[in-house]
Amino acid sequence: MRTRTAGPRNLRRQSSTERNALTEHYRRVRRMSEVLAHPLKPDDYGLQAMAEVSPAKWHLAHTSWFFETFLLAPFLPYYRAFHPQFGDLFNSYYNEVGAPFPRPRRALLSRPTTEEVYRYRAHVDAAIISLLTTVEEDHWREVESRTTLGCHHEEQHQELFLTDILYNFSHNPVRPAYRDDLGRATTSRAAPLSWLERPEAETEIGHHGSGFAFDNESPRHRVRLAAHAVASRLVTNGEYLEFIEAQGYARAKYWLSDGWQAAQERQWFAPLYWEKHDQQWWTFTLGGMRPVNANEPVCHVSYYEADAYARWTGKRLLTEAEWEALAQTQPADGNLRDEGHLHPIPAPSGAPLAQLYGDVWEWTASNYSAYPGYRPAPGALGEYNGKFMINQMVLRGGSCVTPAAHMRATYRNFFYPGDRWQFSGIRLAEDR
Amino acid sequence: MRTRTAGPRNLRRQSSTERNALTEHYRRVRRMSEVLAHPLKPDDYGLQAMAEVSPAKWHLAHTSWFFETFLLAPFLPYYRAFHPQFGDLFNSYYNEVGAPFPRPRRALLSRPTTEEVYRYRAHVDAAIISLLTTVEEDHWREVESRTTLGCHHEEQHQELFLTDILYNFSHNPVRPAYRDDLGRATTSRAAPLSWLERPEAETEIGHHGSGFAFDNESPRHRVRLAAHAVASRLVTNGEYLEFIEAQGYARAKYWLSDGWQAAQERQWFAPLYWEKHDQQWWTFTLGGMRPVNANEPVCHVSYYEADAYARWTGKRLLTEAEWEALAQTQPADGNLRDEGHLHPIPAPSGAPLAQLYGDVWEWTASNYSAYPGYRPAPGALGEYNGKFMINQMVLRGGSCVTPAAHMRATYRNFFYPGDRWQFSGIRLAEDR
Amino acid sequence: MRTRTAGPRNLRRQSSTERNALTEHYRRVRRMSEVLAHPLKPDDYGLQAMAEVSPAKWHLAHTSWFFETFLLAPFLPYYRAFHPQFGDLFNSYYNEVGAPFPRPRRALLSRPTTEEVYRYRAHVDAAIISLLTTVEEDHWREVESRTTLGCHHEEQHQELFLTDILYNFSHNPVRPAYRDDLGRATTSRAAPLSWLERPEAETEIGHHGSGFAFDNESPRHRVRLAAHAVASRLVTNGEYLEFIEAQGYARAKYWLSDGWQAAQERQWFAPLYWEKHDQQWWTFTLGGMRPVNANEPVCHVSYYEADAYARWTGKRLLTEAEWEALAQTQPADGNLRDEGHLHPIPAPSGAPLAQLYGDVWEWTASNYSAYPGYRPAPGALGEYNGKFMINQMVLRGGSCVTPAAHMRATYRNFFYPGDRWQFSGIRLAEDR
Amino acid sequence: MRTRTAGPRNLRRQSSTERNALTEHYRRVRRMSEVLAHPLKPDDYGLQAMAEVSPAKWHLAHTSWFFETFLLAPFLPYYRAFHPQFGDLFNSYYNEVGAPFPRPRRALLSRPTTEEVYRYRAHVDAAIISLLTTVEEDHWREVESRTTLGCHHEEQHQELFLTDILYNFSHNPVRPAYRDDLGRATTSRAAPLSWLERPEAETEIGHHGSGFAFDNESPRHRVRLAAHAVASRLVTNGEYLEFIEAQGYARAKYWLSDGWQAAQERQWFAPLYWEKHDQQWWTFTLGGMRPVNANEPVCHVSYYEADAYARWTGKRLLTEAEWEALAQTQPADGNLRDEGHLHPIPAPSGAPLAQLYGDVWEWTASNYSAYPGYRPAPGALGEYNGKFMINQMVLRGGSCVTPAAHMRATYRNFFYPGDRWQFSGIRLAEDR
Repeated sequence: MRTRTAGPRNLRRQSSTERNALTEHYRRVRRMSEVLAHPLKPDDYGLQAMAEVSPAKWHLAHTSWFFETFLLAPFLPYYRAFHPQFGDLFNSYYNEVGAPFPRPRRALLSRPTTEEVYRYRAHVDAAIISLLTTVEEDHWREVESRTTLGCHHEEQHQELFLTDILYNFSHNPVRPAYRDDLGRATTSRAAPLSWLERPEAETEIGHHGSGFAFDNESPRHRVRLAAHAVASRLVTNGEYLEFIEAQGYARAKYWLSDGWQAAQERQWFAPLYWEKHDQQWWTFTLGGMRPVNANEPVCHVSYYEADAYARWTGKRLLTEAEWEALAQTQPADGNLRDEGHLHPIPAPSGAPLAQLYGDVWEWTASNYSAYPGYRPAPGALGEYNGKFMINQMVLRGGSCVTPAAHMRATYRNFFYPGDRWQFSGIRLAEDR
Repeated sequence: MRTRTAGPRNLRRQSSTERNALTEHYRRVRRMSEVLAHPLKPDDYGLQAMAEVSPAKWHLAHTSWFFETFLLAPFLPYYRAFHPQFGDLFNSYYNEVGAPFPRPRRALLSRPTTEEVYRYRAHVDAAIISLLTTVEEDHWREVESRTTLGCHHEEQHQELFLTDILYNFSHNPVRPAYRDDLGRATTSRAAPLSWLERPEAETEIGHHGSGFAFDNESPRHRVRLAAHAVASRLVTNGEYLEFIEAQGYARAKYWLSDGWQAAQERQWFAPLYWEKHDQQWWTFTLGGMRPVNANEPVCHVSYYEADAYARWTGKRLLTEAEWEALAQTQPADGNLRDEGHLHPIPAPSGAPLAQLYGDVWEWTASNYSAYPGYRPAPGALGEYNGKFMINQMVLRGGSCVTPAAHMRATYRNFFYPGDRWQFSGIRLAEDR
Repeated sequence: MRTRTAGPRNLRRQSSTERNALTEHYRRVRRMSEVLAHPLKPDDYGLQAMAEVSPAKWHLAHTSWFFETFLLAPFLPYYRAFHPQFGDLFNSYYNEVGAPFPRPRRALLSRPTTEEVYRYRAHVDAAIISLLTTVEEDHWREVESRTTLGCHHEEQHQELFLTDILYNFSHNPVRPAYRDDLGRATTSRAAPLSWLERPEAETEIGHHGSGFAFDNESPRHRVRLAAHAVASRLVTNGEYLEFIEAQGYARAKYWLSDGWQAAQERQWFAPLYWEKHDQQWWTFTLGGMRPVNANEPVCHVSYYEADAYARWTGKRLLTEAEWEALAQTQPADGNLRDEGHLHPIPAPSGAPLAQLYGDVWEWTASNYSAYPGYRPAPGALGEYNGKFMINQMVLRGGSCVTPAAHMRATYRNFFYPGDRWQFSGIRLAEDR
Repeated sequence: MRTRTAGPRNLRRQSSTERNALTEHYRRVRRMSEVLAHPLKPDDYGLQAMAEVSPAKWHLAHTSWFFETFLLAPFLPYYRAFHPQFGDLFNSYYNEVGAPFPRPRRALLSRPTTEEVYRYRAHVDAAIISLLTTVEEDHWREVESRTTLGCHHEEQHQELFLTDILYNFSHNPVRPAYRDDLGRATTSRAAPLSWLERPEAETEIGHHGSGFAFDNESPRHRVRLAAHAVASRLVTNGEYLEFIEAQGYARAKYWLSDGWQAAQERQWFAPLYWEKHDQQWWTFTLGGMRPVNANEPVCHVSYYEADAYARWTGKRLLTEAEWEALAQTQPADGNLRDEGHLHPIPAPSGAPLAQLYGDVWEWTASNYSAYPGYRPAPGALGEYNGKFMINQMVLRGGSCVTPAAHMRATYRNFFYPGDRWQFSGIRLAEDR
């Protein structure tokens, strides 16, 4: 992937400020990963309940591996790897720089221990800080660019860390809470649904100019949008329950063919984490089991479910271009991780458009594919995004576990249409 | 799916001509399915070597079921189904009109026998011809539209019939030839590769106006194309061999992540049907085993292989819009089924653009998804195309087993990126 | 496997009679295989609904292959194989004489056609008859022994032919009958159950002396039997229904651990082929669908079910030694194939011991393992029986599809404890 | 399962001594489980690399559950379970007393934490000691019997604990050693192989009289043994290497059919844990990676491999009756766990019969089935052994990880013929 940090050559003084700022940013991001791990017991660090999730310990190690591999090894003179086998053990999928340990077996790595992984982190941190302080001017741009990338990479893993913990904990019959101290959602009602009219337009989407972005957000390019309307807020649990009660999960006509097959084979009858006890729906959250709140946005649905729900209502999902064109007009804030809820909350009243950022990732009707003219970065970093541009759908807007600093209008998240363990939900649109 | 046959109300006389013409068309299409089955032995009719292919007998029955279900049952008074269980047995995937017999088990249907299936066909034919002759004027448009659809549907199955026979036969160590009398390809060399320049443009694609099209080809809509160049002919076996010999199948860097995994798991080392004996590559064809001809277009590659090959050359695949914009300027002819080769042949020399239609289906870089404003038809016929708009890639241009009358610039074929048993190949493009 | 046909050297005249008799026996056995195939349609010959069953065509070819491989190739001068690839295609599991075509894919062999297979049979028959007529005296014993073996082998496949046809047809929703002309079972009641007392004893089991037997029936050896009682007849459908109605399939306590797992995973709720419609149990037979007759022996149960049923009654299954010690005292007749029922029938009244031979194979509590001192034959024929002596249980007594001439007290049949497609049932015993 | 502790009614004083002795025994066994866990890191407690092994933490909890369920719940007045869900979470397979948590998912139980499991152990220990002190005389026999059973049960799990740790660690590329301080095997040569002659005999096997035994060791019964010879020691790595080098893994003729299939599918080329690096074989042990020592007994082979090896040598395995008849004449000592090697060692010279106990479990040719007249205990404890009497083979003699106090001539171990993670090896026999 490529970062966009073009700019005039900096003077030394400017650089020193820049170095200090980046060092401080690095420290803050790295510290946050460890803060997020605080509620875990030693026993929790190795859990991996399916191939697609990773153990907490692995997230902590892999993010360090990223800095070691792409910064320390190439740029810090005399740097020696912390452990000769970590290069493969904590490589996620970069075939160009080694032989990644198979993802489905990450739970088998009881060694290195969590304690060693924390030492690995400290070792890498010290070396990175040394690098940021001492690197020659003519490497600075590349080091700065990769450090920034590494921090964004770590923030992505902070989100996955929470997502994966929820999934892993959900398989334990004692249903452990990640945090016992999370406030319950307010009892407020969701704002009534209205529709925001969007006329036919030609506009641009994609990243351009300063500020960090992943390579898959570029190039900025023109798109043509037909007239349509956008729902003022996310679909709620209460609304989704109507679909369930209307036998939506039992009627093939609302479903894509592959979706119908997935729903039958995996026996889907409700969103992931929902359980019915004594006529009451409950859901598993980072705060433990809670009754399903009809006013909260529905969460942990697959693309197939989102699409089937939309079809049942006679509406559709937004394209990513429609979403981004709208989002460019809005500040990138909302119920993101830093709000501390770690759970979606009811849409506030009074705004013509709510919950565009935060709460849940919004499945779009767009396949994850390259923007016209897209080129992945050369070398192993080119494997960051580009090689996943097949079979996945784009999600937009971040969720209640996305770091606020990580969010922006151009950000493209992507998952397989059958994936449900992300904090993913639904916003409706309609042709006009 | 929906057909586009709008027009003013017809007079009775006009209708009679029209009825005769349609009846004759119907007869011709139906007869062709049986002609294609002539080379088969009774033992061959039930073969099904994987879930994705169907036995020859099933194709013959299902195409009749289509007419029975969507024409005879609703429009022919007093029509009684040929057999009470055929409604489910030969339903492919239309959940709205019954419970389709599971596709992977079609080979288990030794009854009805082939002989009964031919009687079923004759029964349906007689009834359809009766319907076309007798149906009231006010039902004519719908009957005419559905009959046309049924004929196109049957032509699709004629192509699958050949594709599936090849696949089924390939699992038999005696490598039976479907036809012993197919001429070998000429020894001509493939034309040299040149590049056709295509400037930036805004244009339209999609079906509009008269003439048959499937619903997924509509609505016609504007698209914007960046400047690019298109290869003057398809990639040849000889060119693809260079990729193989350059260890293309062993280097992850050329592959999409899902493609790499597929190639490893399914142990791909060359296109489907290729076998190496004593340093010579052979391939299995409808005419039996043949040496691989370096001048013929490469065939039976998956999207993953097409994409990896393109990446290895530093080029890319066309989008479906780029392909269609170009194809609109060309007559829809080439090495299609009616040429009788039933195998791709070398590109002729002297044309600035060759093989756009016929020879092999060209994988495009476009996901199979709805055109803006697309709506599937109401009822069961709405299941024809729309519910497959996920996880598949578009192929364009037809192949050496596609009926010529079935081909047109707007036609969208679609398969999963890992599918290889279609006659699918590669055309390169390049950004400008 | 080894046959036991020891005896003094024969005079020439004796040999001529012997040769004629064997030729006639060979012809009769071979003809019977084709008689059994008469009710099939051409479409039925290739069916294979699971890996464990074989297509009818394959049975007809493989039995010919056996004679070709073990008699014609080694003993008939100048014999040339009918087809160079049949040696592998129709080899079942004899690794010493080639590379058997994979069993689960036998349905993919549409070629050779059934018509060719019949020609193959005729070719082999002519050659065998020539061999039996012309072979030199000093090869006669071995030729005679292998021909006899080949005939018994073909009779085994005649039984499997019927068993497999039933299984294959059961997957077709039209439920075809193999024979339309089979009489329905009589309406007679099953004889009341009584117990035959068997005192403690030391006796011998196993084959010895003249007459054909497979190698696994030898050597004859002493066994010690504790005092026990044997049920006078097989368990009936009516009795088994009580087990079903007592929730026997839902209570783990009656089941072996592996059996319980099999029953859960494969969703067993009743014997194979049973279906409940409108409060009435039906079962699929070679004569088509029939109501379950409470007086007939229960059939198509696995060892796990037989064992669970026995445990539920507080009884047990017999050991194979107990069974054989008893069977030595009885003539080897009963409702075997030649009776023509092709279905189990109610136990006749008035006999102290009924149904020991025929009706259904009786699961014994004995693992299929070598008798003390057993040695398989040298060479490929040693693969006939010995290599299967693991993981399987012994069944005794033949069934309604076993050729009468094939049955004897020492005969050991063997299947995996989860297998249900054989005509297998239950006889109870009790410790005294 | 049933214990055999018959005896006259004890006087109170006698009982007090007995109670003290049992309490002390209980404490010792329980403490040993925790001693064995000392070398583990917190990260290791949850490892489960296949369904058949259990996490260390689970072993520690399940053995406590056994005492809680079968002693505290029924016999200790007012006893309240430590945690309401442990009853299911730590139930292995006793369907009669609850719904066991699925075995393949035990690694997902990060909660209760290891620390809680140790508290659970302490809680159960205190309660058991209280029970042993206070239980009324008329319950004493049952309590004493079940406590003894629970201690033997815990010793079985101590062995599995080590076996499973080795397996779990083997999947980690860093190949962690369970213990760094294990001495390497001596360099002594294995004693030369000789043969112990065993004449035909009728004798008795099985448990009888005083002393603990599991129910599957009873009843004692007469068996007849044919004349045979027994190898004086176990097969060594050096001898087994000859089989490997003679292409034993590539020649179907030595293998049982199911064994051959297992070897192909699972890609067996050598015993489990063997790896070849630079022409040198290494093996993974509880002390880490070590070169294969040609003088040590071969270990971690399946029954299929043991049988194929024996067949290759022209010999056979012993039956369990042959083994036990011989073992009755020998003291039950050898290289068992308490010797501290935790690895098999070369056979000592000078003894006519060596390694009968300890080093490796010896696969016998005997299926695991009921002795004549065997009845499982009533209630849930009847599930201990009986329901596994299918599909498994008997192993005899204990291994280097079997507690010495747990070993006796009548002890029957049993595993599936494809299992390799036990410390299992080969002793040869020969017919005479």
